[in-house]
Amino acid sequence: MDIEKVNAMDFGEFVDVFGNVIEKCPLIAAAVWSQRPFSGLEDLENHFFAFIDALPRSGQEGILRCHPDLAGRDLQRGTLTPESQREQSHAGLTSLDADDRLQLQRLNARYRERFGFPFVLAARLSDRAAVPRELARRLHCQPESELRTALGEVKKIGHLRLADLFGSANPARVEPPRAWESEKQQVASLSLRERGQGRVLEDSSEDSGALAARRPAPDVRRAQDAIRDK
Amino acid sequence: MDIEKVNAMDFGEFVDVFGNVIEKCPLIAAAVWSQRPFSGLEDLENHFFAFIDALPRSGQEGILRCHPDLAGRDLQRGTLTPESQREQSHAGLTSLDADDRLQLQRLNARYRERFGFPFVLAARLSDRAAVPRELARRLHCQPESELRTALGEVKKIGHLRLADLFGSANPARVEPPRAWESEKQQVASLSLRERGQGRVLEDSSEDSGALAARRPAPDVRRAQDAIRDK
Repeated sequence: MDIEKVNAMDFGEFVDVFGNVIEKCPLIAAAVWSQRPFSGLEDLENHFFAFIDALPRSGQEGILRCHPDLAGRDLQRGTLTPESQREQSHAGLTSLDADDRLQLQRLNARYRERFGFPFVLAARLSDRAAVPRELARRLHCQPESELRTALGEVKKIGHLRLADLFGSANPARVEPPRAWESEKQQVASLSLRERGQGRVLEDSSEDSGALAARRPAPDVRRAQDAIRDK
Repeated sequence: MDIEKVNAMDFGEFVDVFGNVIEKCPLIAAAVWSQRPFSGLEDLENHFFAFIDALPRSGQEGILRCHPDLAGRDLQRGTLTPESQREQSHAGLTSLDADDRLQLQRLNARYRERFGFPFVLAARLSDRAAVPRELARRLHCQPESELRTALGEVKKIGHLRLADLFGSANPARVEPPRAWESEKQQVASLSLRERGQGRVLEDSSEDSGALAARRPAPDVRRAQDAIRDK
């Protein structure tokens, strides 16, 4: 798929194709269609993210509430969206043993209780060992910063889904948006991925140690380059 | 269902129950949950409508684009939401003959082409004869006023779906919101319904003639009362 093809779509085709870039929020794709023509994938992506950023807080929380729990009820019942099913499967969450599943369900419930929305994480950038660790860590964050972190994860998920739709062989090569989340959060989540099975940043070499120590900027740029260049 | 039960719902239950009050926009229900507790059905409904009104224009157009054509592709394919299936069936749109279906499809296509969103109408308040007439009429409206009219129909649909969920025996008895659409539009659409098979306002008696002449206010209050009291 290229951008000319996207720009030629009527709104029905557009929503059919991009309706789940933001999980269960076809409204957002349907709104983004108003902004065509798009100059390229990044421009298209920026319109999705700008719409999210412009929503009132309740709307942003609403987006999060449209996401399923990781290894939760929808996975058990087989009612995940195809995209979410693939992402949770990729992170190994579809084959947890009973104890691990129970642990995650308990953490998810505590998180929902604390923040009023589910724990959202770009599962394709994580793994079954890292997910509960990250969930336990974020449980202790302040609500304001946690909302921003969670919306950053929504954008990562959207970024990867768009990359898939554009047929990028390696989604991580697609230009990441400029402001997914605060730099510190980005380093923290990168570090967590690296301490996991390193599925994404397998080749991140000497940066890993520094990132794993959760040192905030100035290594953010190098970390971003690691994603971009992989 | 009563409002205490609604106020006790966690967001998962709430979105399960109210997620399609606005067609294919669970995001809106999920956002409205932030505003709990609700004092009653009307308060709950007002939060849905306030969210719609606060969206940027692209978001409002996006809501419309999440609606199916009447007697369109989704109906043929059996992919309507249960609510929409019931509404289109109630208006007799599931049993059109081939000529009527083709006529409607052509009108729908012209409407989509002109406005950039599908023709939205509260089908339960209309019927198979009135739908193409109303569609042909609205095709000639100005884009700005047509957007407002269409959002007014979204609200009527939401109002009736909420009434169903609250188990109101006659949905039309539920207090209508104060500002669905401009008064003139309301009279015009009421008149059209009355010139149809009068499924809704069967008992509207002597007001029918005046409304059918599309006379603008001051009869709006009586027309609203006719809905409210039926």
